[in-house]
Amino acid sequence: MKVPERILLGHGAGGRLTGRLVREAFLPAFENPALAPLADAALLGEAPEGRLALTTDGHVVDPPVFPGGDLGYLAVAGTVNDLAVSGAHPVALTFAVILEEGTPGDLLATCIEGARRAAEEAGVPVVAGDTKVVPRGKGDGVYAVTAGLGVVPPGRELGDHLVREGDEVLVTGPLGDHGATILAARHGLGGEALRSDVAPLAGLVEHLLARVDGVRALHDPTRGGLVSVCHEVLGRAPGRPGILLRQQDLPVRPAVHAVCELLGLDPLWLACEGRAVVFCAPDVAEDVLSVLREHPLGREAARVGRVVTRGEGMPPVLLETDTGSLRPLDLLSGHDLPRIC
Amino acid sequence: MKVPERILLGHGAGGRLTGRLVREAFLPAFENPALAPLADAALLGEAPEGRLALTTDGHVVDPPVFPGGDLGYLAVAGTVNDLAVSGAHPVALTFAVILEEGTPGDLLATCIEGARRAAEEAGVPVVAGDTKVVPRGKGDGVYAVTAGLGVVPPGRELGDHLVREGDEVLVTGPLGDHGATILAARHGLGGEALRSDVAPLAGLVEHLLARVDGVRALHDPTRGGLVSVCHEVLGRAPGRPGILLRQQDLPVRPAVHAVCELLGLDPLWLACEGRAVVFCAPDVAEDVLSVLREHPLGREAARVGRVVTRGEGMPPVLLETDTGSLRPLDLLSGHDLPRIC
Repeated sequence: MKVPERILLGHGAGGRLTGRLVREAFLPAFENPALAPLADAALLGEAPEGRLALTTDGHVVDPPVFPGGDLGYLAVAGTVNDLAVSGAHPVALTFAVILEEGTPGDLLATCIEGARRAAEEAGVPVVAGDTKVVPRGKGDGVYAVTAGLGVVPPGRELGDHLVREGDEVLVTGPLGDHGATILAARHGLGGEALRSDVAPLAGLVEHLLARVDGVRALHDPTRGGLVSVCHEVLGRAPGRPGILLRQQDLPVRPAVHAVCELLGLDPLWLACEGRAVVFCAPDVAEDVLSVLREHPLGREAARVGRVVTRGEGMPPVLLETDTGSLRPLDLLSGHDLPRIC
Repeated sequence: MKVPERILLGHGAGGRLTGRLVREAFLPAFENPALAPLADAALLGEAPEGRLALTTDGHVVDPPVFPGGDLGYLAVAGTVNDLAVSGAHPVALTFAVILEEGTPGDLLATCIEGARRAAEEAGVPVVAGDTKVVPRGKGDGVYAVTAGLGVVPPGRELGDHLVREGDEVLVTGPLGDHGATILAARHGLGGEALRSDVAPLAGLVEHLLARVDGVRALHDPTRGGLVSVCHEVLGRAPGRPGILLRQQDLPVRPAVHAVCELLGLDPLWLACEGRAVVFCAPDVAEDVLSVLREHPLGREAARVGRVVTRGEGMPPVLLETDTGSLRPLDLLSGHDLPRIC
């Protein structure tokens, strides 16, 4: 991959400089037959049988390179994960960047290489892209926006509308690694034990869904973390259920706990970028757990709570603490954690 | 549509503020069954028969509101046009924004309403979106990145590889309206006669392709204008053809000429956002012209040049000027026209 030393406004103007950047930096990384013609739209084959799924995500994470990943890897993994938790096989991705004039070419190269690696790990081609450049002070290095096309195989149905009282809640690994790593990096904290969990989950999800029936819904707990996922699910589940999480079962790494204590945060609201939350029928919860643990990205999976009947006046999401008391877990009001992804 | 007075960092943090912005501003504008659940990915139906097409584009136009359109309208129209010139029916769009902290809610509302209007005109739903907010000085009001999914009907084949010596070149309307309007607005020039041509072309293209066989390739002359399209086509056409354009036949509005003279630019390199360049077999050129002129967006279509045999030492793209001389038309080197789209 060849990148210029610094990004110039002309790299986004659609002329020779844009052409060279695309041919020398993006094209070699993402090489595939649909992208190669650099046409106005990438032509794919006929759609595989099933329902189409479409998603998009913007990525403005600060810092753009962090322990365990970078903005490009995060962008592709994030979009793959949105498809995967919807039950869709990823079919193709797009990758658009908005670069700030003066951005070091090396940073762009790192993000392109990260995106390439995540796409390779997920087995999905990046078939279309776009490059815009904004003047100094109108951006911040590299922003990337990805979109993902997937197909949900016939007969597969997942969704929060299937979640029932009595269902179990599992997570595929420790909570808050990504959020804690980003915040620590921003505050000059850190240490070797902190590392983002960012990873494309398409393989883990397929492994699970191919082996166990009775999974109701899947989510990736990104912005807003596990607690936000719980609130979202309850907002769409029929009836008026609640969710009870058990503090003693929630996997959180000591280093994440330490950062949270220092910064006054709680890992239950911190973003993960390589975890899924699984809602399943109670009689398959143990199967789900063991199948998840068979996969490299699910080794530290845990059963963490269940969907309960919500009594009058009971908050929707509750934590049973280590001391046995019950604590309501509310949605974040908003401004706590900007630019985490 | 309800928007906050100013955008706060919390509007991008994934908590209550984000939820309210999505529910009160984006959801009512784009209302459709695939978007409504606000799931991780939008679930569409089975794919219509044909080949899938996927495209993406970032939009950072400055100023974001201009005579004839706005950044949101431009974003949706631009992506619809990338699909349309590829021969694809648009099926679904995504719309992601990167907002600067402090951006007036009214500007966001204008862009959402513009995107809604363009999507309605093109008859395509916006099924997924994302909102990120960056701190003051790390963005510029509103940036939008759209992706588009389309389907090329069975049996339809278009592409630069089909372009042959002898083929004719047409444009669907005057050149450079968008580029001239943006540059004039940025320099405080303007006047009532200048107005961006931005428009979704899906209807015009379907009208054409349903009525005439022999269209080889279509392009939307955005960044880099007509000249860049000619170079791109020649880069992919078999053999070693050239393109000869006739100055006297190239439609350019007097107001666009005037702005170009003032700013030292040439309309042949200026962006259009609601025009297509059509390459067709010579025997159907007159049919293409009359069919284009039947459609409201093609009333000012013109035959402007042809694909020629390129002699030794001849530049790829030539202009036959009004005085009968030949002038080479080269690719822009790059930095001339940033943030035109």
